[in-house]
Amino acid sequence: MTRSWWGWGNVEDAVRGPELAALLDRVRLLSAAEPEDHPPPPAASLALRPPRAKPPASLAGLCSADPADRAAHTHGKAFRDVVRNLHGDLRHPPDLVARPRDERDVADLLDWCTGAGVAAIPYGGGSSVVGGVEPRLADGRPAVTLDLERLDAVPEVDATSRAARIQAGVYGPRLAAQLRPHGLALRHFPQSFEFSTLGGWLATRAGGHYATLYTHIDDLVESLRVVSPAGTGESRRLPGSGAGPSPDRLFLGSEGALGVITEAWLRVQVRPRWRARASVRFGEFAAAVAATRAVAQSGLHPAACRLLDPAEALVNTGVSVGGGVLVLGFESADHPVGDRLARALELCRDHGGAPDAPEERDGGAGGSEGGDAADGGAGGGSGAGAAWRSAFLRMPYQRDALARHSMIAETFETACTWDAFDALHHAVTDAAHRAVRAATGATGVVTCRFTHVYPDGPAPYFGVIAPGRWGSTVAQWDDIKAAVSEAIAAHGGTITHHHAVGRDHRPWYDRQRPAPFAAALAAAKSALDPAGILNPGVLVPER
Amino acid sequence: MTRSWWGWGNVEDAVRGPELAALLDRVRLLSAAEPEDHPPPPAASLALRPPRAKPPASLAGLCSADPADRAAHTHGKAFRDVVRNLHGDLRHPPDLVARPRDERDVADLLDWCTGAGVAAIPYGGGSSVVGGVEPRLADGRPAVTLDLERLDAVPEVDATSRAARIQAGVYGPRLAAQLRPHGLALRHFPQSFEFSTLGGWLATRAGGHYATLYTHIDDLVESLRVVSPAGTGESRRLPGSGAGPSPDRLFLGSEGALGVITEAWLRVQVRPRWRARASVRFGEFAAAVAATRAVAQSGLHPAACRLLDPAEALVNTGVSVGGGVLVLGFESADHPVGDRLARALELCRDHGGAPDAPEERDGGAGGSEGGDAADGGAGGGSGAGAAWRSAFLRMPYQRDALARHSMIAETFETACTWDAFDALHHAVTDAAHRAVRAATGATGVVTCRFTHVYPDGPAPYFGVIAPGRWGSTVAQWDDIKAAVSEAIAAHGGTITHHHAVGRDHRPWYDRQRPAPFAAALAAAKSALDPAGILNPGVLVPER
Repeated sequence: MTRSWWGWGNVEDAVRGPELAALLDRVRLLSAAEPEDHPPPPAASLALRPPRAKPPASLAGLCSADPADRAAHTHGKAFRDVVRNLHGDLRHPPDLVARPRDERDVADLLDWCTGAGVAAIPYGGGSSVVGGVEPRLADGRPAVTLDLERLDAVPEVDATSRAARIQAGVYGPRLAAQLRPHGLALRHFPQSFEFSTLGGWLATRAGGHYATLYTHIDDLVESLRVVSPAGTGESRRLPGSGAGPSPDRLFLGSEGALGVITEAWLRVQVRPRWRARASVRFGEFAAAVAATRAVAQSGLHPAACRLLDPAEALVNTGVSVGGGVLVLGFESADHPVGDRLARALELCRDHGGAPDAPEERDGGAGGSEGGDAADGGAGGGSGAGAAWRSAFLRMPYQRDALARHSMIAETFETACTWDAFDALHHAVTDAAHRAVRAATGATGVVTCRFTHVYPDGPAPYFGVIAPGRWGSTVAQWDDIKAAVSEAIAAHGGTITHHHAVGRDHRPWYDRQRPAPFAAALAAAKSALDPAGILNPGVLVPER
Repeated sequence: MTRSWWGWGNVEDAVRGPELAALLDRVRLLSAAEPEDHPPPPAASLALRPPRAKPPASLAGLCSADPADRAAHTHGKAFRDVVRNLHGDLRHPPDLVARPRDERDVADLLDWCTGAGVAAIPYGGGSSVVGGVEPRLADGRPAVTLDLERLDAVPEVDATSRAARIQAGVYGPRLAAQLRPHGLALRHFPQSFEFSTLGGWLATRAGGHYATLYTHIDDLVESLRVVSPAGTGESRRLPGSGAGPSPDRLFLGSEGALGVITEAWLRVQVRPRWRARASVRFGEFAAAVAATRAVAQSGLHPAACRLLDPAEALVNTGVSVGGGVLVLGFESADHPVGDRLARALELCRDHGGAPDAPEERDGGAGGSEGGDAADGGAGGGSGAGAAWRSAFLRMPYQRDALARHSMIAETFETACTWDAFDALHHAVTDAAHRAVRAATGATGVVTCRFTHVYPDGPAPYFGVIAPGRWGSTVAQWDDIKAAVSEAIAAHGGTITHHHAVGRDHRPWYDRQRPAPFAAALAAAKSALDPAGILNPGVLVPER
């Protein structure tokens, strides 16, 4: 397999043939013009700016100045990243890509950067959709990207406490492969699972597999090890503590601006044995939302609780339904979970939902392989849920195919309290439609699903597909994104539930963040990174 | 009812009569000498140092210089606080007690303190057991205690999202009374419930009712409002977010050193309707621990999961059993929970446990009153569990009675991973016994229970009772506490799971806290409190 330099995942997995034809058929309704393909330029043709930094001899062996390597590390994987790559628009490549072998190398690289005034961009899988790894620096200083891929081991497993020490640069599949012989799993499956790393999940507070309870990676962290320019430290492995503010919570979500997370102890799970799942159709979206709220507040703790609105259900599962589909899944390594599903379905019926036949499964001792990233984390099955799950991992590839064909195809997400959801949903959907019309003159598709739900509110995830004008789709999307971000902020949502802040969410994050915390964060940054070299411009202003 | 100035709770609830006789009978085995009572000095006799600070006229109406008021605010409620009060040893009284009526008053008081170089000690119920509210300042500057008791309202309830806006100075019972008409409850019942406040719980990351899942108040927080000398701010109400490091988590556990928490949105619960509970006896403590670990890792999420070791079971429930008693309780507002209890009991039987007859109860629609603080949060019932629960709220009063009779009676607690527990338990118990012997020449009783359990480890809570020498019991306890704290640190435990750091835990906290977080915390403190007036000496060094 070959990693794509310009788009999602592996070159061999790109959308082509019948899948491409079907995809283009589905969007043909949106535009009169016949979509034209714009293939990516060869990496060799990009004529990147020459490197402006030279590492000391002691670190030269860790650093690559290869143009293809630098090109692949220039952008994240947002729509606007992919389109800029398609245009060969790589204005801010890293000057070097460094690949530390161990923590000592990380510290040495930070020392060099601090002394030389070179920015250091910590880099996991590079799947940021918020400009989090892009060396787009206002002051134009050189930048070195710290790709942690060599830190990919699981050096210790504590089966008694169900915890593992894991290096930050390990990708999802290799992490899973190292836990599997122990009968254990992290069970954290972001959509990016195959192409993102533990360190990236921690630094961005990634959202994972569990729709309830352990939604963010934060809750699975037992301790963190961090290298900052001001020094290295590790929190004690603890199941819980009340000794001062949580040290780990300051570094979770710090996006490489306060230090480089080099490894962590994570709480892991015994692979689930029992599963139960069903999909529920609703005639009215409001009823579907009410049912989802009832399930979220029931204390039943489903592992999957994904509400698809009618547009999402149609686009991604082919199901036509007036009010949406709720995909429910329960899992346990300890006990059958059919009774929990039954109670959740009862709550859905109370709100007018029509469940399909529940499926229950006993995977036998040792757990079953299903329910990993390959099916979006909720495991095999049939019906709307299964269709959804198989669509889930193709979405980024399809987004790339649409981007090549001048389409605007992107997502954004938030979270809000239940009392605020109706108004937020209406305002955001309305803002998206208006902005699409203003930017493109055409009508787009706006979809909504809940990726995670809490007793006090849902995390809605929106998709937008609209016909763009080749050469302008980034600017068109930026206008749409600004409009929906304003609507989110005006209705009490967070600028992101699990996509981080990076550079692109900064204007809204700066307004959302309480002033005392802003002052504390800036002070912490100055103390840990006095030269301001760490990922300048994310979270706090560049200096 | 009259609040005791020197000891726990209400004067009218002190241990006396037959309860006192029985208590003294139980400890008579520990000492040859007949225990002699040392009653507290009258508050009027204390001859406190005269106030050294004078508020400006605009704030004078908020401030009390009354000696009895100042005496009652001098110490927390640790054993060493109570004994010093009994001796009339109040060397560091606050110079004034201020009672702000609203947030504006809080800000004005902080402004005055900042300008005048007066320390400000935020104060909830004053139940700290770690010197957290004691104006014991190295530089001897004047101090004003900010008692938030007037901020005691619940101004907003959002029943849809199950959340409430609650002022920080409200005591547990008044908070519960304001939620009850809505059919809601916070269900956070620390042992101090009746005499502690929401703000205190938040500032110290209090541990509450739930033995699993929502163990600390942290998990129930939707947003916080904080007044710091550098400004005021409030986080957005959000069920979850990934926008930068959590702003709330920096102020949870900040112990009044970074700002004054004036109010918060808390996630609340529908009062539980279904309950099920049982107690399980074990022949061996190791088997009891293994069973508890199995339950903690099962995903059954019991509300109560309290393992009492044989000494704890004997002292506090009168049950004589070789390996300990596990008290299990489940609760739900949505569904019966008997099946969950049954599975937990099966896990216990797998480890040799002998359950008593499970009790199941349907409290009917609207929930039942049981299970509130009056029974320690796990609700009525019979057997060892019920005996435990009725003992639970008497413990601080009994501690005071023992303190008056020259006994050393105190607790300490920690948390560690399961793989570390056996060694930690052995070392801490051994250190406690040795230290008791060294300090007193006598043999003491050392008990252990788990207050909270996690998939990756328990939170053990230890009790020590030993005969002391009147006039020396504080120094004797301080020696014992230092010895057990060293043993905890050496075996990977936290210096506190839910009693905070204050001034007394600082030496061990300073070693436990990772260096990068220490630097960040100190920088945050300087940014938010440039004059260093906020509770100087807790968490970070006094300046």
